[in-house]
Amino acid sequence: MRYLSRLFQPVITIPKNAKIKNTEITCKSQKLLLECGLIRPTSAGLFTILPLARRALDKLEIQIRSCIEAAGGQRMSVPSLTVAALWERTGRLQAIGPELMKMEDRHGKKYLLAPTHEEAIADLLADVGPLSYKQLPLLLYQISNKYRDEHRPKHGLLRSREFSMLDAYGIHSSEDCALTVYHTVTQAYAELFRRLQLPVHRVAAPSGDMGGSVSHEWQLPAPAGEDQLSVCSRCEHASLDPTDTCSQCGADTETRSSIEVGHTFVLGSKYSSPLSALCTPPSGAPQPLIMSCYGIGVTRLLAASLEALSSDKSLRWPAAIAPYTVIIIGPKEGSKEWQSHGADAIQRLSERIADTHDDDVIVDDRHHLTIGKRLMMADRMGYPYIVVVGKASLERPPRYEVYCSSAAAASVRLLTEDELLGLLGAAGAEDHDEIKTSA
Amino acid sequence: MRYLSRLFQPVITIPKNAKIKNTEITCKSQKLLLECGLIRPTSAGLFTILPLARRALDKLEIQIRSCIEAAGGQRMSVPSLTVAALWERTGRLQAIGPELMKMEDRHGKKYLLAPTHEEAIADLLADVGPLSYKQLPLLLYQISNKYRDEHRPKHGLLRSREFSMLDAYGIHSSEDCALTVYHTVTQAYAELFRRLQLPVHRVAAPSGDMGGSVSHEWQLPAPAGEDQLSVCSRCEHASLDPTDTCSQCGADTETRSSIEVGHTFVLGSKYSSPLSALCTPPSGAPQPLIMSCYGIGVTRLLAASLEALSSDKSLRWPAAIAPYTVIIIGPKEGSKEWQSHGADAIQRLSERIADTHDDDVIVDDRHHLTIGKRLMMADRMGYPYIVVVGKASLERPPRYEVYCSSAAAASVRLLTEDELLGLLGAAGAEDHDEIKTSA
Repeated sequence: MRYLSRLFQPVITIPKNAKIKNTEITCKSQKLLLECGLIRPTSAGLFTILPLARRALDKLEIQIRSCIEAAGGQRMSVPSLTVAALWERTGRLQAIGPELMKMEDRHGKKYLLAPTHEEAIADLLADVGPLSYKQLPLLLYQISNKYRDEHRPKHGLLRSREFSMLDAYGIHSSEDCALTVYHTVTQAYAELFRRLQLPVHRVAAPSGDMGGSVSHEWQLPAPAGEDQLSVCSRCEHASLDPTDTCSQCGADTETRSSIEVGHTFVLGSKYSSPLSALCTPPSGAPQPLIMSCYGIGVTRLLAASLEALSSDKSLRWPAAIAPYTVIIIGPKEGSKEWQSHGADAIQRLSERIADTHDDDVIVDDRHHLTIGKRLMMADRMGYPYIVVVGKASLERPPRYEVYCSSAAAASVRLLTEDELLGLLGAAGAEDHDEIKTSA
Repeated sequence: MRYLSRLFQPVITIPKNAKIKNTEITCKSQKLLLECGLIRPTSAGLFTILPLARRALDKLEIQIRSCIEAAGGQRMSVPSLTVAALWERTGRLQAIGPELMKMEDRHGKKYLLAPTHEEAIADLLADVGPLSYKQLPLLLYQISNKYRDEHRPKHGLLRSREFSMLDAYGIHSSEDCALTVYHTVTQAYAELFRRLQLPVHRVAAPSGDMGGSVSHEWQLPAPAGEDQLSVCSRCEHASLDPTDTCSQCGADTETRSSIEVGHTFVLGSKYSSPLSALCTPPSGAPQPLIMSCYGIGVTRLLAASLEALSSDKSLRWPAAIAPYTVIIIGPKEGSKEWQSHGADAIQRLSERIADTHDDDVIVDDRHHLTIGKRLMMADRMGYPYIVVVGKASLERPPRYEVYCSSAAAASVRLLTEDELLGLLGAAGAEDHDEIKTSA
């Protein structure tokens, strides 16, 4: 059983217009994550992820891994330190320039802290290759910290300088083969956002620095977004081109701020060709591999989902990644309920709930605080289910107050233990199928 | 079901005395990991972890997390980029010097890629503090990549420049409180090594650059080890001091090469004092927190365990972290067994085994290769159980050859499907209790 009093969660209040580590507070996910003790800046654009946010990130990573492995992804780990010479050969050292974090080792050899790994993967394939077309396609992925030396980091985890990212690389013998894998990964992305219950739009996108032929951005409408999305009021088709009428159905569009949470590309041979990553076809000479790549900003997606779902005052999470699904608030010390139940009875209830809910339960054992105060804090944190052992717990049979953060605040329900376990068990079973990994 | 033919495992043969990325092959874990397609160097002391090794690392991380969380550990993530000024204040920027990976951002601000995070944690505690003694102790941990600019990286993953490490930090109001947590974490380490079935010795150690009062190294005897351990032939007491007789029981000692896989320290106020990380005691003025810290080199432990268990020719893993627990080798295409069973029957058997074994099964579906060749490769990879669908599968009831890598090579057993599922199920149940995380 986890107890809130033992948790490292340094809650603070940020004065209006205050700067934190030289950075303005510009959006609600940034403010709420800081104030609720979930993250802590260490320097401009760098954050310590504190235990509750780390737990949410763990859950998000499990969901992402499950979807990308269902698409055939094989996990690996590429070093963050990448030899700069590789990026010279593809022209990106120049093209991206000051946003790259560069360094030299003690012998003066030049490296960069990679923001992405197309060069490293192409170099690996060149090193082991040429690959036979029979071994292809392959889908290799990692979840690791990436680096970007933003001129002005802002919006907290939405634009930081060290961030967690999924990057997956498709390796193909032909453009057709690449499009097949692209389609499979597209479905995996759609499944991920379905599980997170986030209205993420896939929109055609320019390829930018990455190069290649096909590219889509995955955009989540949210207030702090730096992109503008035209969304059709009838068919939901979305576009990054500002248009008044939908190109698909002709209906009116609405413009919304939006956050890029993922990107998918067919890269062609832009990286394999200069780095000599080759494929042996059924007949003829080896030729450059066709690559595709897929990114999801993990820390960014966490913050973006909070940006999209939260109010100015209270966090709201996709149910699948809330730090804990259930919080239990016992009576205040010295109250009639406290005297009647004692800490042991609350612990037993908590354990029975924990049993049905895969330990995804925390007990707010700060019994010196009133129920009202703890309820307010639990609501601000956005735990999907808040269970209060209040006055009705003295009835026979005892009943518990259950607040469900996805419903209106007024919708408190009074449930017996069996009803409560039924409700949570049903919710748990639903999540469960999804959370299983193939690790 | 996983199929070997789809796996990215670039097997190579390394010529004698060859250098790989300017590095000599100096030990068997390095040679076997490279040759079996499990890792691949990208530059001196930097390695891509390929899918099968990544899977073993995932399992190892789960074991480590489970043990450290049972000791009260709360997972968090601290950025790898650490402000260099913090290390100036504790004196370590000078003291460690050229082994630190240093860099500047676009504004000229100095950072280092941290090899460890005592400064960052003390700074975090100063930032949120002073902490009340009532909130303590806390145990915060992360598993993340650490950096050390080794003058001469060697022995593959045993001494690399970017490596995965568990680092945990105890935060205490007094030295007594620190010793209690130290004892708890010591037991967690012992439990971890028990699960991995590795004979790791805890030995008293000098604190070195870290400072503090109490310190132990955790040493695994193995051929490539750079430390020398005196181990008592009677009571197993181990020491880093070269002695002929045991200080505990007076019996003779034996000297063995050994690899440091973990370290534990009580640090006192060496970091909290210069960085002003304070604790409010029951009465009186705030005073520096007492810290302790705990490290386990994750990639190093993986390589060290292979170094300790493998032969020159074949990998051997702790059963709990083998990339797959079971490999199934079907008959060669065109053989009598193949004609009798077909691929479907092998798939059905594989699925039944996978069901009892939590999907921890891989099928060597390269049916164009002989059973003998695939058996040799599976033995070299060190899968704990190798199941061969050979001649005896034509008997009624069919029987399967089962090779168990922890037993002598001669000990092949012929088992019916029920006997096989019983054997694997029992092994699985054993692992299972241990692999469950509290994520």
